[in-house]
Amino acid sequence: MPMKSPVIIDLKFDQEEVAAALKGAFPDREVVNLLHPIHRKRDLSGIDYAVVWKPGADLFSRAKDLKVVFSGGAGVDHVLTLPGLPDVPLVRFVDDTLTTRMSEWVVMQCLLHMRQHRLYEAQRDKRIWRELSQPEAKDFTVGIMGFGVLGQDSAKKLRTLGFNVIGWSKSGRKVEGFETFGDSGLDTFLGRSDILVGLLPLTPDTKGIFNTGLFTRLSRKGPFGAPVFINAGRGGSQVEGDIVASLNDGTLHGASLDVFEQEPLPLESPLWSMDKAFLTPHAAAASDVAALFRHVEQQIERLEGGKPLEHLVDRNAGY
Amino acid sequence: MPMKSPVIIDLKFDQEEVAAALKGAFPDREVVNLLHPIHRKRDLSGIDYAVVWKPGADLFSRAKDLKVVFSGGAGVDHVLTLPGLPDVPLVRFVDDTLTTRMSEWVVMQCLLHMRQHRLYEAQRDKRIWRELSQPEAKDFTVGIMGFGVLGQDSAKKLRTLGFNVIGWSKSGRKVEGFETFGDSGLDTFLGRSDILVGLLPLTPDTKGIFNTGLFTRLSRKGPFGAPVFINAGRGGSQVEGDIVASLNDGTLHGASLDVFEQEPLPLESPLWSMDKAFLTPHAAAASDVAALFRHVEQQIERLEGGKPLEHLVDRNAGY
Repeated sequence: MPMKSPVIIDLKFDQEEVAAALKGAFPDREVVNLLHPIHRKRDLSGIDYAVVWKPGADLFSRAKDLKVVFSGGAGVDHVLTLPGLPDVPLVRFVDDTLTTRMSEWVVMQCLLHMRQHRLYEAQRDKRIWRELSQPEAKDFTVGIMGFGVLGQDSAKKLRTLGFNVIGWSKSGRKVEGFETFGDSGLDTFLGRSDILVGLLPLTPDTKGIFNTGLFTRLSRKGPFGAPVFINAGRGGSQVEGDIVASLNDGTLHGASLDVFEQEPLPLESPLWSMDKAFLTPHAAAASDVAALFRHVEQQIERLEGGKPLEHLVDRNAGY
Repeated sequence: MPMKSPVIIDLKFDQEEVAAALKGAFPDREVVNLLHPIHRKRDLSGIDYAVVWKPGADLFSRAKDLKVVFSGGAGVDHVLTLPGLPDVPLVRFVDDTLTTRMSEWVVMQCLLHMRQHRLYEAQRDKRIWRELSQPEAKDFTVGIMGFGVLGQDSAKKLRTLGFNVIGWSKSGRKVEGFETFGDSGLDTFLGRSDILVGLLPLTPDTKGIFNTGLFTRLSRKGPFGAPVFINAGRGGSQVEGDIVASLNDGTLHGASLDVFEQEPLPLESPLWSMDKAFLTPHAAAASDVAALFRHVEQQIERLEGGKPLEHLVDRNAGY
């Protein structure tokens, strides 16, 4: 039996977490963790696999013989734009943990706005006991832009809680049990969305798509009279200056952002102190690193056993 | 056809909301809204029905001929303790709206603790970008005390989000698909609950049940190493001094309270300023007043059509 190819790890994650997850991972092959100093000048030729998240700029020139590149996250825009990315299969990270964590975050953000959490927190700060008039989930339609694995899971959970849910994807993909829209239905979709949830990949088509022009097309017929914008896709899809202006002038009722044009969010961003915005530091669906390695092991096993890889990225579509 | 009995309304709710909901309600009978001054000295004898929430102390001595008393809320402790309550059927308010609103609140509170919302809010205040190590829903067991209509609805929704859920009720009621416990299983139930949700009625048995003694029996094996206490049942079931002490000494990791021993919560309560507690002003499941009147209309229609009333209170059990 030929020796099994090593696997390169180049993950700009918390290195302690990566090290902990590597214990016991890939038991039958060598692991080359590039963040470890001893591998700094290691010859990477002849290695088949790399697992990457924001990898070093020289990775692909050093690892010339890669057969598969595994993205360390659900998004792949950080990989697709790398110079020298070889023309080999690129596999996204799809994992129940990542999906369910994202849904936790999306559901919580919808509830925070719907249940007027910030207003209640402000009343608490002033020791004010006052019940606010309270719409309920069925009074809201949540429109999810990006209706793949993540979007559909959030949709099911939001609907269980009583929200009306509609979905949009570029391809207009049909999903049983949900009303869905494609490119030509975007206006109708936006006009019905009291809460817009962005779970889009970052592609040339989606860059800056969440701007004032789009916000003004959202529903203003919901219980709050203005829409809520929630984004956990990619920061590059949003125009933060427009979000700030739209929150200030009432075009938006509220916002929840887990992703930003520049991360970490610059200290001088006005978003930090806006009462109408909930912020988290790209933490909505943190990958479980151990789960990532299990997923990579499974895919390598499939490949070496003669089966096709799953979760392949379509480079033309950009996701 | 004999004239239909008027219906007495004695609801200490927002009177504008009551007035708005009364428009169009009970179209075939007179409505005697006791909060309206013209009815202050009205003769109430001969009237069959009263819809009450914290009614006047003299209601039952004035309305001597009531055949049914309808509670304005899911809880009935405020009615059962009234002097002069006649020995007639007492009907609780069960309504989809009330149930789903309660579940919204319960799910949101579980998520707020699980997703470390207060820590992220504190980081935001200081413009700190830092991802926290994040357990996920499946790492937590939520124990729901009070496993009736409300508890079961919350249980289903929490489980959809990935939480493990177990239920406790005094009677040990079996609920398909859930592991449930009764009186003799309380220790086991508590020992497995990383998050305890109280949805109990207030009875002599449940008065003060949520105290330090009970909190020390909860699971300390969950991701936070200490349990979370959430109460949306009745404030009389909790000992707030014990909650404060337990949050301070680490017996509890966090708390969410919608109900209090005294409401409004007194200004001097230390709970107002505790970082580890989320508070709402008895607003978790505000009854929709229009839905209440629809429910009462339906029950009166059943009764006058010869059918049995639904949602009857068992006075011996106290709920």
